[in-house]
Amino acid sequence: MSVEDLPRTLEFAWHEGEDGDRRFGMSIIDQRLLPDECRVVTLFGYEAAIEAIQTLAVRGAPAIGVAGAGAVALWVCNEAPEQGPEDYLSALRQVAGEIASARPTAVNLSWGVKRAVRAVTEVVSASGVDAAADAAAQCAMDLAAADEATNRAIGANGARLLPEGSRVLTHCNAGSLATVFYGTALGVIYAAHEQGRIVHVYCDETRPVGQGVRLTAWELTQAGIPCTVQCDDMAAMLMKQGLVDAVIVGADRICANGDTANKVGTYQLAIAADYHRIPFYVAAPTSTIDVSLTAGSQIPIEFRGAEEVAAFQQFEPHVYNPAFDVTPASLINGFITEKGVIRPIWHEDGSLFDLRDLSRIAPL
Amino acid sequence: MSVEDLPRTLEFAWHEGEDGDRRFGMSIIDQRLLPDECRVVTLFGYEAAIEAIQTLAVRGAPAIGVAGAGAVALWVCNEAPEQGPEDYLSALRQVAGEIASARPTAVNLSWGVKRAVRAVTEVVSASGVDAAADAAAQCAMDLAAADEATNRAIGANGARLLPEGSRVLTHCNAGSLATVFYGTALGVIYAAHEQGRIVHVYCDETRPVGQGVRLTAWELTQAGIPCTVQCDDMAAMLMKQGLVDAVIVGADRICANGDTANKVGTYQLAIAADYHRIPFYVAAPTSTIDVSLTAGSQIPIEFRGAEEVAAFQQFEPHVYNPAFDVTPASLINGFITEKGVIRPIWHEDGSLFDLRDLSRIAPL
Repeated sequence: MSVEDLPRTLEFAWHEGEDGDRRFGMSIIDQRLLPDECRVVTLFGYEAAIEAIQTLAVRGAPAIGVAGAGAVALWVCNEAPEQGPEDYLSALRQVAGEIASARPTAVNLSWGVKRAVRAVTEVVSASGVDAAADAAAQCAMDLAAADEATNRAIGANGARLLPEGSRVLTHCNAGSLATVFYGTALGVIYAAHEQGRIVHVYCDETRPVGQGVRLTAWELTQAGIPCTVQCDDMAAMLMKQGLVDAVIVGADRICANGDTANKVGTYQLAIAADYHRIPFYVAAPTSTIDVSLTAGSQIPIEFRGAEEVAAFQQFEPHVYNPAFDVTPASLINGFITEKGVIRPIWHEDGSLFDLRDLSRIAPL
Repeated sequence: MSVEDLPRTLEFAWHEGEDGDRRFGMSIIDQRLLPDECRVVTLFGYEAAIEAIQTLAVRGAPAIGVAGAGAVALWVCNEAPEQGPEDYLSALRQVAGEIASARPTAVNLSWGVKRAVRAVTEVVSASGVDAAADAAAQCAMDLAAADEATNRAIGANGARLLPEGSRVLTHCNAGSLATVFYGTALGVIYAAHEQGRIVHVYCDETRPVGQGVRLTAWELTQAGIPCTVQCDDMAAMLMKQGLVDAVIVGADRICANGDTANKVGTYQLAIAADYHRIPFYVAAPTSTIDVSLTAGSQIPIEFRGAEEVAAFQQFEPHVYNPAFDVTPASLINGFITEKGVIRPIWHEDGSLFDLRDLSRIAPL
């Protein structure tokens, strides 16, 4: 077993029907059924794709970005009515708007949708409506391939940070299931494991939605990597016992100064790692870096419903349920990106990281 | 609404039946039904009391200690067959052994059982079997009264530590529900609230069993104290936002040097409080101090079943599920006991606390 045996989270292909017609399909692992069942479903309509995104059948910022482009391609390849270029592009924009608003907070979603709309618009303008399908399908497949390549590069760059025999702790799911394939934080673990450097992975349960126990522990087990699940509040005890050599997490948004938003619990984990002098790394593609934000206080935090934490019949306590928190750059020992590892150094303005000019990242 | 309106967790009384017979009863809140239902059930047989302890219908170290004495009293008052003093005391010891082993890890349980057995043995030896019932009942009622008095003293001592307008965060349930009445950590909050010093209480959910959301938030709401529940891994974010002025938790065992075992998650919380420079207090009766242990590494930690964390149909991950963790004395700003507040000072042996001679506690 290895990471290469994992099913792909997202996959595009042309399918030939009994009537000889070609249809473009987006196959996804329905993550609502994990870990009890790993079912791959193939979607052919853009409305089914929207539903999959909204109901978290497909989740994780990188995966959602590609799924957004894929949803556009499903409409273009399988559903668009025959019409002239002008009406066609008008209908395309309406469908794209529907897809992009499936989940309002995921920036990657609208990014993927925009990429597909641009590719189709260019080819329709140049060569007419008949060329749209192949262009849309190609765009979705290209984005999927690029996501995997990015993750494999993150993995290779991060693996060098882990000495032999490493025991790594992670929070939430920044794995293959959150991407097209391979993962970001777990990508580092897969790459290091292939080099024989990973002994064990500790997965935070990740309250309240449980991505750690439902997705990460399942994914690692499928890939043949020994792992253990613990409640989020037990991580410090593992550290105290000397069982954790490094912490690696993903990221939802990284500010220019290095402050990082990620699944709630990441901040408390970073404090515990700092207390125990354990290195704490963030693994993410450079597209997650938002240089328009200078500090973490500018990141909008999504709050979610009380029922995720407390679902009783007769008692409704007041619940504080932020989906994300912000870890200050001072608690982060490095960003693992596809371009290289960004280490903290003291900058003239007193900051530890300066992510505004990524061309300055020294490749390892 | 105030704490005085809370139902008593544990209460003893003589009941007169239709046949004119007196029976001694132990009434408990069945905590398995909380927060959806607050049902008080009255037990008359010692086996029912054992079941209540084993199934966590009654829980919390102080409450279990008194319930153990109560279970002995139920047998003595309602169930002991007529026999000579020697056979009687032999049967008593056998019943006591059954009760004491209902939960092996709770030291308080055997302590309470021993107190009741001693009281009955003394009176039977001196005055015969007929005097046993009144002695056993009196012992249980005395222990219950003493527990409440201890908790009210803890509350009064601790309240002085909290300035006006305090927002306190707590973990697990060290409340009235964990004692006969009033609670330890929550006792401090009740006493401070009566003095108008508490603005808000933040309750950690307390994974994996959820005592914070099921019991603490319910109990505080009944007592009319504004409170919010958050997942354990969100506490640091509340602290960062400046919403927490103090952390107060209970304790299961305190070593001579101040290292403290409490519900798992307490250690990570103490680290987060330290990082944010928020005072972290442990509230517990001096009977929780175990001077036979010199440091936290000597405290045996109970591990519990995986199903508390992960209960899936087709996937059984390896789970790390310690029920307790140990917070080093260096992260604790004071112990709030019924005898006074014990503050850290540097001792000759390099320790911050020296709890071996409690007579040296300076009353506030």
